[in-house]
Amino acid sequence: RAERLRAYVPPGRAAPRPFELGHAEIDGRLMTNWKRLAARALSGRSRLAWSYGDPQGEPALRRAIADYLAAARGVRCRAEQVVLTAGTQQGLSLVAQLLLDPGAVVWVEDPCYRSAVDILGAAEARIVPVAVDEGGLDVAAGRGPSPSLVYTTPSRQYPLGMAMPLARRRILLDWAEASGVWIVEDDYESEFQAPGRMLPSLQGLDRALRVIYLGTFSKLLFPSLRLGYAVLPEDLVAPFAAARHLADRQSSGLVQAIMTSFMESGDFARHLKRMRARYGERQAFVIDLLRRHLGGLIEVRPVESGMYLTAWLPSDRDDRAVAAALADSGVTVLPLSALILETARPPGLVLGYTGHSEAAIVRAVERMAAVLDPATGLINRPKLAVRKDRMPV
Amino acid sequence: RAERLRAYVPPGRAAPRPFELGHAEIDGRLMTNWKRLAARALSGRSRLAWSYGDPQGEPALRRAIADYLAAARGVRCRAEQVVLTAGTQQGLSLVAQLLLDPGAVVWVEDPCYRSAVDILGAAEARIVPVAVDEGGLDVAAGRGPSPSLVYTTPSRQYPLGMAMPLARRRILLDWAEASGVWIVEDDYESEFQAPGRMLPSLQGLDRALRVIYLGTFSKLLFPSLRLGYAVLPEDLVAPFAAARHLADRQSSGLVQAIMTSFMESGDFARHLKRMRARYGERQAFVIDLLRRHLGGLIEVRPVESGMYLTAWLPSDRDDRAVAAALADSGVTVLPLSALILETARPPGLVLGYTGHSEAAIVRAVERMAAVLDPATGLINRPKLAVRKDRMPV
Repeated sequence: RAERLRAYVPPGRAAPRPFELGHAEIDGRLMTNWKRLAARALSGRSRLAWSYGDPQGEPALRRAIADYLAAARGVRCRAEQVVLTAGTQQGLSLVAQLLLDPGAVVWVEDPCYRSAVDILGAAEARIVPVAVDEGGLDVAAGRGPSPSLVYTTPSRQYPLGMAMPLARRRILLDWAEASGVWIVEDDYESEFQAPGRMLPSLQGLDRALRVIYLGTFSKLLFPSLRLGYAVLPEDLVAPFAAARHLADRQSSGLVQAIMTSFMESGDFARHLKRMRARYGERQAFVIDLLRRHLGGLIEVRPVESGMYLTAWLPSDRDDRAVAAALADSGVTVLPLSALILETARPPGLVLGYTGHSEAAIVRAVERMAAVLDPATGLINRPKLAVRKDRMPV
Repeated sequence: RAERLRAYVPPGRAAPRPFELGHAEIDGRLMTNWKRLAARALSGRSRLAWSYGDPQGEPALRRAIADYLAAARGVRCRAEQVVLTAGTQQGLSLVAQLLLDPGAVVWVEDPCYRSAVDILGAAEARIVPVAVDEGGLDVAAGRGPSPSLVYTTPSRQYPLGMAMPLARRRILLDWAEASGVWIVEDDYESEFQAPGRMLPSLQGLDRALRVIYLGTFSKLLFPSLRLGYAVLPEDLVAPFAAARHLADRQSSGLVQAIMTSFMESGDFARHLKRMRARYGERQAFVIDLLRRHLGGLIEVRPVESGMYLTAWLPSDRDDRAVAAALADSGVTVLPLSALILETARPPGLVLGYTGHSEAAIVRAVERMAAVLDPATGLINRPKLAVRKDRMPV
């Protein structure tokens, strides 16, 4: 097994560069709040469990999560169905341990979040890509034997951004019930979308107890938080909690104590609201810049909200070559083709627009213009050939 | 796989009862230090990585760990060989993932730390118990096919407490080199022993790069910390770090930042010294109480230091029945036979003497006297029949 793991190289650490993904904005108010809550927890004025806590996670925190998910995402669960994790990564890794034998067939969306593919691959699953269309994942598009599990991002397909319509959600759930398939719903970045405009989660529509709902606080607060949650059908709670306990016992008591107070005090809701507004403004800023400086070279459309945009390149461009050229000039972009398993798409760049200063973004867009523009000679400038009807969504 | 995990029930949470194991003493100085360091980290005055950090762990923390282990445990490593974990539990779980195929033979000491057996069992290893003698694990006592891996606690055998002599350490290492066997050295509670009186770790004697050294900060600081480390032979560092990253990415950035400052400031060394002294006093207090109140019913000998004692019962007692009777009267003791895989030992009780108040300990010893004494009628009082030459160590 060591040999397989040698092939996996975790991303290295470096100072954030635009347009790296997943960098939250850390503002003074968050720092002040956390400082105050950490001091409270460490002085015994809140429920910090110094000793081993509840293996599923602190009950008060699980209650706060269940309430939040019910209100924001239409998740229907009791606190007893919530198990804390170190994030979506661990959630999926434990699900794979629990539900997949080596060689088990797993459907993933194509294109797909890279870490999900890595984790399922490490669990020796047989990964079958299913190309998404304008409604996201369509079970009718799946081929081959019926899977044991489907990994999906229905609220906002990663990285293409479409939401799965209600009718298709129901079809997916009916099919899962009839076929005995598990569904892993990764509700990635759903917290940044305006709640009233979103469809309820698959979990909230599920009557057959086939859905495992995964979420994380790391996107909303900061990546090194390492705190997330899984919401499980009753019958899977105990084995999932057992797998978590065997893997690493539990999440940090201090972090759980701070997070509990942060949610109970309303600071969490206020932070969410503040970040939603800030990320919305930042997105508008980036789109305006890209359109003004790269109008003929890149096509970008506003999305509901979140932390990234997918920008389209002319169809004859090689997005990996563009990303490599940009990397040389200090700008990090994720080429869409790096997320594609099988079904070709027009070339694109996934741009994380949060956690970078406006000045850094301006410089990055200038570099993009230099790299994409023929005057620099790095990449030839073709006529922008992307037409609406050829876009994948 | 879910079925196998259903059989594993993580320990529930309850208020600490004497003599539960592994409860650190949380004193005012530790709380004050951590409050100060948390505030520093959260105000940006120390190296808190809000964003994803180094997947192996913060370099400054790994340097501090390497320095500490070199000085205290004779571990010979560079910071580059240290990978942070969420504790020994995760360390062993990742080692199993990395090095064991299902059905791989693993030798464990008999008796053995229960969690280690659980983790190796969950990895589908074929567990072969090897009875320890007065020198701990002896490879000559192993039977059957050569193992892939040996799990051992050479500094202080858990739970019997003996140290493996130097000559036997060399034999174990030579054999591991000749047979290509991996050794997992769990250096459980070694931090509480006076450094000058301890043998260097197996890792420090290993020339053949067969030893994986596991340690944790949770015993020394507090269990809900969830921070530990693995020291790996160069060749295993990358795949182990990859397995950690796939499992849950990394440890909490905030906890790493606090711990780094705690070690660099010398607070860690001072805390260690303070706890060593306090646990030594607490041990003497408990031994005195046990001898005075349970002189004819239990035999207990001082150990170098640490957080627990193993007390011996008369040979015709059933330690599980004693533990059950004590549980009914509010006292938690771990029966030695619960840690035995195969080779019978005289009955005993593992008593965690730290993290409980003196008053709670006095009450617990009174209850033990009531339960073990014939006057209560709960358990018959035989003559103490344990002789020195029949003790397992």
